[in-house]
Amino acid sequence: MLAEFNIIPLGTGESMGDSIASVLKVVQESGLPYKANAMGTIIEGGWDDIMSLVKRCHEEVLKKAPRVTSTLQLDIRPGKPQDRLTEKLKSVEKRLGKEVKK
Amino acid sequence: MLAEFNIIPLGTGESMGDSIASVLKVVQESGLPYKANAMGTIIEGGWDDIMSLVKRCHEEVLKKAPRVTSTLQLDIRPGKPQDRLTEKLKSVEKRLGKEVKK
Amino acid sequence: MLAEFNIIPLGTGESMGDSIASVLKVVQESGLPYKANAMGTIIEGGWDDIMSLVKRCHEEVLKKAPRVTSTLQLDIRPGKPQDRLTEKLKSVEKRLGKEVKK
Amino acid sequence: MLAEFNIIPLGTGESMGDSIASVLKVVQESGLPYKANAMGTIIEGGWDDIMSLVKRCHEEVLKKAPRVTSTLQLDIRPGKPQDRLTEKLKSVEKRLGKEVKK
Repeated sequence: MLAEFNIIPLGTGESMGDSIASVLKVVQESGLPYKANAMGTIIEGGWDDIMSLVKRCHEEVLKKAPRVTSTLQLDIRPGKPQDRLTEKLKSVEKRLGKEVKK
Repeated sequence: MLAEFNIIPLGTGESMGDSIASVLKVVQESGLPYKANAMGTIIEGGWDDIMSLVKRCHEEVLKKAPRVTSTLQLDIRPGKPQDRLTEKLKSVEKRLGKEVKK
Repeated sequence: MLAEFNIIPLGTGESMGDSIASVLKVVQESGLPYKANAMGTIIEGGWDDIMSLVKRCHEEVLKKAPRVTSTLQLDIRPGKPQDRLTEKLKSVEKRLGKEVKK
Repeated sequence: MLAEFNIIPLGTGESMGDSIASVLKVVQESGLPYKANAMGTIIEGGWDDIMSLVKRCHEEVLKKAPRVTSTLQLDIRPGKPQDRLTEKLKSVEKRLGKEVKK
């Protein structure tokens, strides 16, 4: 299963760089496969591993912010082999007949 | 904490009514405070209660659909008293000086 | 088509009440059918009417906040009659055989 | 401004590869800066350019699907220079003192 999430701290100014950095530190330490982009972080794994990591990331941001809002998007496809983090776009590129920007 | 979520079954046709009904059945049985709207369901509770319920809802939909995508939106504000499910809009209505449609 | 959206102001403190009130004022003045909930506002209409309203709401929040993030969820079903804002849940209640909390 | 969006076709089976490919074709032809990831596509531009492109992408998917749901996430920061599509993560990497996977 794939999960993209972003966590937005409120009450700590308009910049989110420090907050995103602290989240990515937790994600990197978890060892779960991930990819970061300009709007969020995508992780791949089972439900419990993903949700436990996402919880720790929220706890990390809540250390410095009095309130957070966040969005999670899930894509769950039980029968599919692993590594959809990269394979999903590769299959799209095959259909397009060319590469896309990543 | 408040969580709004919707679960979209793929590979089962364009209607989502049966799927939404099965999710709301699980939500009602959980006993957690909730409100349904045309685009999703909002539940209120602690992280673990909410995520355990959201997981059961996904499992329910995955009984009939080979793939699901879903969106969760969280609003976490540790110091706030309970019942933000109704109080949040009431405080907005106070500022507006009139009721909003719900 | 249905659209649920919420707009989160950054750099203006942790409260969102004033911002939500200013958004709902713009929505009410638009005349488009809407329903507010604890996590966002759902409006019903055609693409251009909805997006023009959503743009004005963002402009309103940007008058006071140096940055905003927002989420929109769309449900577009061309052949369906109007008033899905209330009919969608009614059809779910029929399947459930009982009312849900709204 | 940055916008990440994904469009989910309903009533066309569980695979989304063809649909994503047709969306990315429209995005590439638009000339707007973009980056695709496993969960959506991020584009950068002004409100009207972005929304006009996002509308065309929806129209493209609706040619083959009787219903679509979609999610858009916006990050609007008026004073910031362009190329936040790549600069946002670079500023995070500076804070982390190392690269992140992209």
